[in-house]
Amino acid sequence: MSEVAAAPLEKLAGAAFDEWVRSRLALFERAAEEALPPADRIPARLHRAMRYAALGGGKRVRPLLAFAAAELAGGGEAERPSLAAHGVALAVEFVHVYSLIHDDLPCMDDDVLRRGKPTVHVAFDEATAMLAGDALQAEAFRVLADMPLAAELRMQLTSMLAHAASTSGMCGGQAIDLAAVGRQLTIDELEQMHRMKTGALLAAAVRMGAVAAGADAAAVAAAAAYGRALGLAFQIVDDVLDVEGTAESLGKTAGKDARENKPTYVSVLGLAAAKARAAQLHREALAALAPLDARARRLRELADYIVGRTS
Amino acid sequence: MSEVAAAPLEKLAGAAFDEWVRSRLALFERAAEEALPPADRIPARLHRAMRYAALGGGKRVRPLLAFAAAELAGGGEAERPSLAAHGVALAVEFVHVYSLIHDDLPCMDDDVLRRGKPTVHVAFDEATAMLAGDALQAEAFRVLADMPLAAELRMQLTSMLAHAASTSGMCGGQAIDLAAVGRQLTIDELEQMHRMKTGALLAAAVRMGAVAAGADAAAVAAAAAYGRALGLAFQIVDDVLDVEGTAESLGKTAGKDARENKPTYVSVLGLAAAKARAAQLHREALAALAPLDARARRLRELADYIVGRTS
Repeated sequence: MSEVAAAPLEKLAGAAFDEWVRSRLALFERAAEEALPPADRIPARLHRAMRYAALGGGKRVRPLLAFAAAELAGGGEAERPSLAAHGVALAVEFVHVYSLIHDDLPCMDDDVLRRGKPTVHVAFDEATAMLAGDALQAEAFRVLADMPLAAELRMQLTSMLAHAASTSGMCGGQAIDLAAVGRQLTIDELEQMHRMKTGALLAAAVRMGAVAAGADAAAVAAAAAYGRALGLAFQIVDDVLDVEGTAESLGKTAGKDARENKPTYVSVLGLAAAKARAAQLHREALAALAPLDARARRLRELADYIVGRTS
Repeated sequence: MSEVAAAPLEKLAGAAFDEWVRSRLALFERAAEEALPPADRIPARLHRAMRYAALGGGKRVRPLLAFAAAELAGGGEAERPSLAAHGVALAVEFVHVYSLIHDDLPCMDDDVLRRGKPTVHVAFDEATAMLAGDALQAEAFRVLADMPLAAELRMQLTSMLAHAASTSGMCGGQAIDLAAVGRQLTIDELEQMHRMKTGALLAAAVRMGAVAAGADAAAVAAAAAYGRALGLAFQIVDDVLDVEGTAESLGKTAGKDARENKPTYVSVLGLAAAKARAAQLHREALAALAPLDARARRLRELADYIVGRTS
């Protein structure tokens, strides 16, 4: 993984992937801009805080995964799969952003820097930050409910997102994380925590993108297996970057895990073994896609990108 | 309203209503008990906090409204309408409970007493309280998504709940409330704030109960108008009780609004005019039900109960 980690995005996947990412990010930003309440609508301060947190920042890994998974339905570069994945991309990113806002609050991680900017409670205030997170979660479900898709599909998506955000997913993982500070975790416990805290929503992004676009059952199952492996790989790379990265490259405080005595893949396995585990999960994610044809190309490229990222 | 405010529940509506309330509350508690993750499942502390906040306390006004509205579909005391309203009752109450947990946090109202017990962040800790609220919101949408109803109905319910919980509803009202502390509000601004903060979710409970049970369009429209009037009346009575009640009768800190310099109906209109406005909204709520037959009986009785309550 180490040579991969050093390679810039362009070298990994070439101009076509780069262009695909750029176009999907532009699509996402426009959709998010429109979906969020305007900054001048009352309560304006709350709306400004939501937009501050949700717009114009972040790697948008979850939206990109949703867009890539939507291509499994076929149609390649056509608009249909992307349009179907629109609402999914917004909903999973809004849930992710809400969790970041709450996670950064003084009663949680007490962090002041996120996506290269002051965190929401620093730029606004704690109460507004909490409400902005609360409102973004409601917004996520509103977006799914109001998607121009068959009700049966929207219900499946809503159920998937609710489970991924619940105590069997993201919220549960964060609670285990809280309880784990200063404790020695086994590698199994650590993996369980990360699968819930980060993996559940990443995997949901992939599966929901495929389902929303109408991919067949075999493709959805392959996407789900890919999402599970890649979701965990993502978090291990995060742990590695927290040790190897800088605040400047990450856009958030570096070296926090060790300082806060949090169990991570690096603290439990060591740096080399953590990287090896990420590489293994990378291979597992690609193997899950093996039965699929070129429609899985963007998912393959995203796996390389996610495991190889340096920020 | 003053004589109504002094009358106990039994005198208002008689034994049949009393028995109906008891049976629906028992139904609700059993359903909530089953719907929430077990207290011994990991992350146990988070699950205990969610159950501590959501079980065995509160007036359950929103669930009762949902059950009463479900009877508009006909079937009287039959099980069908209640079963259909089950998920609605759980979902709206989970959203309500999450908002109470977050509202009580130090960065918001900083309160230590709720439903006669220490607030969640006092009984557990701030981080657990925040996560318990976050998880209860996700749980609310999970319950709706997994209801045994047609997908089209579940989608309508999900959309209604998401809007009621959003910045155009509950979260928006709380943000306006925050911004209003120490400011002079006009009666229109105050009404708008209360309609969003409390009214939106109460009105959603009524409308969602009617929709879930399959009430016809005229009944749903009547229920919606009833819910809007009663939702505002509920908050005015809350403002009155904050002045006239005691911590013992309320199960929460009394006299808070004045101490925190919050604008309320009492501070803006005075006590007598606030009571008169509640009585007027009570009449409006009943007038909205006028076209409906005996199926609206429980909604009528609940209006008397809600406006006449002393806690």
